[in-house]
Amino acid sequence: MTSIDWNTLTLDADALLHRLFPICRSITGDGLRRTLILLREITDFQLHEVPSGTICYDWTIPDEWNVRDAHVDDSAGHRLIDFQQNNIHLVNYSIPFEGTLTYDELILHLHTLPEMPSAIPYRTTYYNRTWGFCLTHEQFLELDKKGKYHVVVDTTLTPGALTYGEAILPGSSGMEFLISTYACHPSLANDNLSGVVLWTLLLRELSGCALRHSYRFVIAPETIGALAYIAGYEQAVRALTGGLVVATVAGPGHFGYKRTFRGDTIVDRAVRLTFRELGLEFTEYPFDANGSDERQYSTPGLRVPVGTICKDKYYEYPYYHTSLDNLDFVSPANLVETLKLYMLVIEKLEQNRTYRSLNPIGEPMLGKRGMYPKVGGTIKQKIADSHVHGERRYAVDAGGILFGNELDAIRWVMFYADGQTPLLEVAERVGLPMGQLDDVAKKLAADGLLEEIVA
Amino acid sequence: MTSIDWNTLTLDADALLHRLFPICRSITGDGLRRTLILLREITDFQLHEVPSGTICYDWTIPDEWNVRDAHVDDSAGHRLIDFQQNNIHLVNYSIPFEGTLTYDELILHLHTLPEMPSAIPYRTTYYNRTWGFCLTHEQFLELDKKGKYHVVVDTTLTPGALTYGEAILPGSSGMEFLISTYACHPSLANDNLSGVVLWTLLLRELSGCALRHSYRFVIAPETIGALAYIAGYEQAVRALTGGLVVATVAGPGHFGYKRTFRGDTIVDRAVRLTFRELGLEFTEYPFDANGSDERQYSTPGLRVPVGTICKDKYYEYPYYHTSLDNLDFVSPANLVETLKLYMLVIEKLEQNRTYRSLNPIGEPMLGKRGMYPKVGGTIKQKIADSHVHGERRYAVDAGGILFGNELDAIRWVMFYADGQTPLLEVAERVGLPMGQLDDVAKKLAADGLLEEIVA
Amino acid sequence: MTSIDWNTLTLDADALLHRLFPICRSITGDGLRRTLILLREITDFQLHEVPSGTICYDWTIPDEWNVRDAHVDDSAGHRLIDFQQNNIHLVNYSIPFEGTLTYDELILHLHTLPEMPSAIPYRTTYYNRTWGFCLTHEQFLELDKKGKYHVVVDTTLTPGALTYGEAILPGSSGMEFLISTYACHPSLANDNLSGVVLWTLLLRELSGCALRHSYRFVIAPETIGALAYIAGYEQAVRALTGGLVVATVAGPGHFGYKRTFRGDTIVDRAVRLTFRELGLEFTEYPFDANGSDERQYSTPGLRVPVGTICKDKYYEYPYYHTSLDNLDFVSPANLVETLKLYMLVIEKLEQNRTYRSLNPIGEPMLGKRGMYPKVGGTIKQKIADSHVHGERRYAVDAGGILFGNELDAIRWVMFYADGQTPLLEVAERVGLPMGQLDDVAKKLAADGLLEEIVA
Repeated sequence: MTSIDWNTLTLDADALLHRLFPICRSITGDGLRRTLILLREITDFQLHEVPSGTICYDWTIPDEWNVRDAHVDDSAGHRLIDFQQNNIHLVNYSIPFEGTLTYDELILHLHTLPEMPSAIPYRTTYYNRTWGFCLTHEQFLELDKKGKYHVVVDTTLTPGALTYGEAILPGSSGMEFLISTYACHPSLANDNLSGVVLWTLLLRELSGCALRHSYRFVIAPETIGALAYIAGYEQAVRALTGGLVVATVAGPGHFGYKRTFRGDTIVDRAVRLTFRELGLEFTEYPFDANGSDERQYSTPGLRVPVGTICKDKYYEYPYYHTSLDNLDFVSPANLVETLKLYMLVIEKLEQNRTYRSLNPIGEPMLGKRGMYPKVGGTIKQKIADSHVHGERRYAVDAGGILFGNELDAIRWVMFYADGQTPLLEVAERVGLPMGQLDDVAKKLAADGLLEEIVA
Repeated sequence: MTSIDWNTLTLDADALLHRLFPICRSITGDGLRRTLILLREITDFQLHEVPSGTICYDWTIPDEWNVRDAHVDDSAGHRLIDFQQNNIHLVNYSIPFEGTLTYDELILHLHTLPEMPSAIPYRTTYYNRTWGFCLTHEQFLELDKKGKYHVVVDTTLTPGALTYGEAILPGSSGMEFLISTYACHPSLANDNLSGVVLWTLLLRELSGCALRHSYRFVIAPETIGALAYIAGYEQAVRALTGGLVVATVAGPGHFGYKRTFRGDTIVDRAVRLTFRELGLEFTEYPFDANGSDERQYSTPGLRVPVGTICKDKYYEYPYYHTSLDNLDFVSPANLVETLKLYMLVIEKLEQNRTYRSLNPIGEPMLGKRGMYPKVGGTIKQKIADSHVHGERRYAVDAGGILFGNELDAIRWVMFYADGQTPLLEVAERVGLPMGQLDDVAKKLAADGLLEEIVA
Repeated sequence: MTSIDWNTLTLDADALLHRLFPICRSITGDGLRRTLILLREITDFQLHEVPSGTICYDWTIPDEWNVRDAHVDDSAGHRLIDFQQNNIHLVNYSIPFEGTLTYDELILHLHTLPEMPSAIPYRTTYYNRTWGFCLTHEQFLELDKKGKYHVVVDTTLTPGALTYGEAILPGSSGMEFLISTYACHPSLANDNLSGVVLWTLLLRELSGCALRHSYRFVIAPETIGALAYIAGYEQAVRALTGGLVVATVAGPGHFGYKRTFRGDTIVDRAVRLTFRELGLEFTEYPFDANGSDERQYSTPGLRVPVGTICKDKYYEYPYYHTSLDNLDFVSPANLVETLKLYMLVIEKLEQNRTYRSLNPIGEPMLGKRGMYPKVGGTIKQKIADSHVHGERRYAVDAGGILFGNELDAIRWVMFYADGQTPLLEVAERVGLPMGQLDDVAKKLAADGLLEEIVA
């Protein structure tokens, strides 16, 4: 973590957000495919195509959807609603249509948000074969009730494929964690272009590291894409220790954590400890059967505990699923702040070793190893501890202080070195930073006082 | 529950209260016997007689007690204390006596309540062979200290029997619950004529229903009657899953629940959930080794967890065990309110099925079953959810809203369909009404998505 | 406990404090040895000597340290710092030295407390072979920076032994508890002469008693002495049920309890119940890997749960490890107050029997055993319970009241007589004094209603 250049990461995030925002993505089609191909320029992962018609449990991969153009014109030929201006004007997965309609006929296909009249809603019709347009309520109110409207929905819905991406970073611990995101949303920035960008940068950063655990990175359209992935790797998915779904991570609001359905897994605990060590406020959301792809991973036949760290959680911010969830709403700096949290959580998972004492009865003699104050009697003595150093020529009680709480860390690590208590639990219990416990444990292991338990 | 006529129930309760109140009941005798025979006009159950002298564990059924008359007269023949006016004037189970006593001799046999001077206390002497009278402290203070008093206690104490009633409503689940009450108190309304009436009406209402669980209804004198019952059916009692003792259920005060000795059994949880769903305040009392017949059912050799729902719990209201616990204190409306709680608790026990998903990996495709909004993108979107409908001719975001929280219910029921989580636990966890979860589960089962676990 | 003469105990404590305070103790040497020999005049225990060079796990018994004299004089021969005036002037375990030093050379060997300028700190150098003096910061500031100083450290560090004491009070329950203290500190009163005196008086008081459990009393120098003891009796130590380290027990401040590393053992619970029954406030400190000899007993290879009851806990009071922790700071009355707590805790451990009901189904018929009110109907009746007795010639409701909560105690003891619930747990749950439960249980056992479970 120390060698990471956060400024460069922020610039990279900014570039990716701008490059990818305009693309019209969906659960299938070229927008999705092009997005994934672009991301592979940033970091390596594999692409997979699942043909339309493939059965995935209770679901079937639908025909592939692509858009050439879509618009609504008035009788004078003025373009009133235009897919080219904002791809969420078109209800996602609209079937092809061309025709001239009265006002009364047209509005059965229109979607607006009366309570947020300047925003275009985001709507889909994946499995209900119809078409529609989304527009601001302000614009809707200006439509001429006596006018005629020419509608063009120049889309195709034909057998093709659903595209997803995957990378596995192998580790040796026997534990594997999922890092998943969904890439099916069109021009919506926080939900979930931010997640797509974070996922990509996280994969790039970790790809260079030696890792204890394995990490399974999946990028797919939401729900149907996750199901297609699970159907392909059911055994591996079921064996996952846990995971995180990266969603809505770059808004201006507060951090949030939607916990796993268990609520107390190693993932939940690493997330909480990360926030606690940073002194960072966050809202913890209970597990909800609504949400993103953790819904699939958590079903009874899999029961993989999956959480989500957010910045401005989906459902909670007012611009959710509207045209106002755009590049003005998110920032690359927010995104990188959240990325850092994901990285710190993974760092904790990596540091979460379990040790057994090789000196199990009685404390080790730390003095002979240079790990104990040279002058005895000072430990925890308040007037010694509070003593201001500065320029002194006399040897007044420097002993205990130099070690600060490192002696505490040593003693707690040795105390819990029962071969059953991983460092994360030690950190939770004693309130010392996990990084310090990790450092101390490595030093004690090097001194022959501890051995790591390898599963 | 929907087909129940609560008005009729209230009228029935009123009639029973008035008809039964005057009878002088005890732990044996004709008052008790007559009460049970009368109740059999309302609903069917079996009567049993246990002969005096029968050993029930550490106890022995006493001689049967009956009263012809009892009074204290002054020397002018004025009737000062008269059993005919209020049967609690006579200490219950007083032995026969006739004689003329001085004031000093008499008062050794009198019981009053100096702190509630206008109330007659209720006292008993079941196992201590003596006699006594109860009177108001006001009347006591007016007694002539120099007078002579003629005392008549025209009772009989002779070998006979103890009477109790029993009905079993059979179900198929293999689980059986106890519904018990005590019928030994004379003219005391809340404690426990109210319980006797509730028990009877509850039995009548359930008798007509198809039930999953079995219900064992017992009406007996307190303590000795419960022990006589247990001695007769020890194996069946020990096998009970739990139960409720119906006691003090029609006072004007607040609802109370005395929990079982375990405190977290299915009975306790069904009671709490019932109060929670109704938004009804209640006082939860810890288990206490004092109390009613749960004392016997909870002893180490049986350990049947038994609770009690009260309205004005015994011990807690000031009129407890006095002549002021009369028909002015209770009301049939209160009684029926509490009856409804008992019925709702039983309904929850009945609805507490456990399901296994037949589509265990990934969510089911609800859309093709008409269980999903036709327009995607609206779920949990606050500005869509808060959208006021009313008269609209345009198709603005009706999608998600029509389903309300039924989609939540579907998702939670499917999520917890692991074959181990009964619906009551789902309701506790997710806060949706158990009735809704039950409806949804039946629908999903009919759609082939769930199967019920049968023990 | 009733037969104890607390005044005599206080006088004894006072005499011991004054007699032992002046002795210069250390982790080895004649000061320690002499202290233990003196204590054996008060109560019997065994002395052990462990030779220098003995390996105890990761530690080695050091050479024995003894002091003949130590002082720092100015060039005029005035004695500036004098071991004879206060033995903590000399850094404990200073090596022999004699020489004349400049100010700049001298102060490298001086220890002061700038923030508490009138106090001499207590410092040690057990395993770092050097010498030093401790003095008040006030005196330090008066030293002539141009002066010459003659230093004499007339100590010996030669092969000898470490001395500890031990006594075992045998019981029959199969459970054994540790009562340990450390006797290595020189003239410091609360830490830990107070603990040494309490340990001795507690041992004397218990020596005369018939005990159910065994108690292992250990008095040794801190850390190295505990390790020497453990090395000698490893199997027995590992089999201990739990214990208490007696430390800092006579200060003017509040009571404290440092809990065991488990936090909920029988020792922790007996301590909490003792404070609760006395209505005594105390601070509960979490287990800490710092502290006293519980550090050794709690290590992974032993895991004996050991707590400490303090009055002015070490680390917490400002005079800790200074010359102000003297006989003005502590009092024998405080010491005996804390001693009483230790005795009450042990009493609870002794009373913590487990019973099985010999009448497991239904309550016993208490009336025939004279354990029930003669007049029924009064139990828990508020207006009966609140009735003021005083002078009465009439028999108004005395029944239930005479028994007070003894009937509660009887019912709860019978209720929990399942052969698995020890009395301490009953007391915790029901809030009745453990002594009352113990009395009642013995009475019920004598009546054939209970039998004690013997392990």
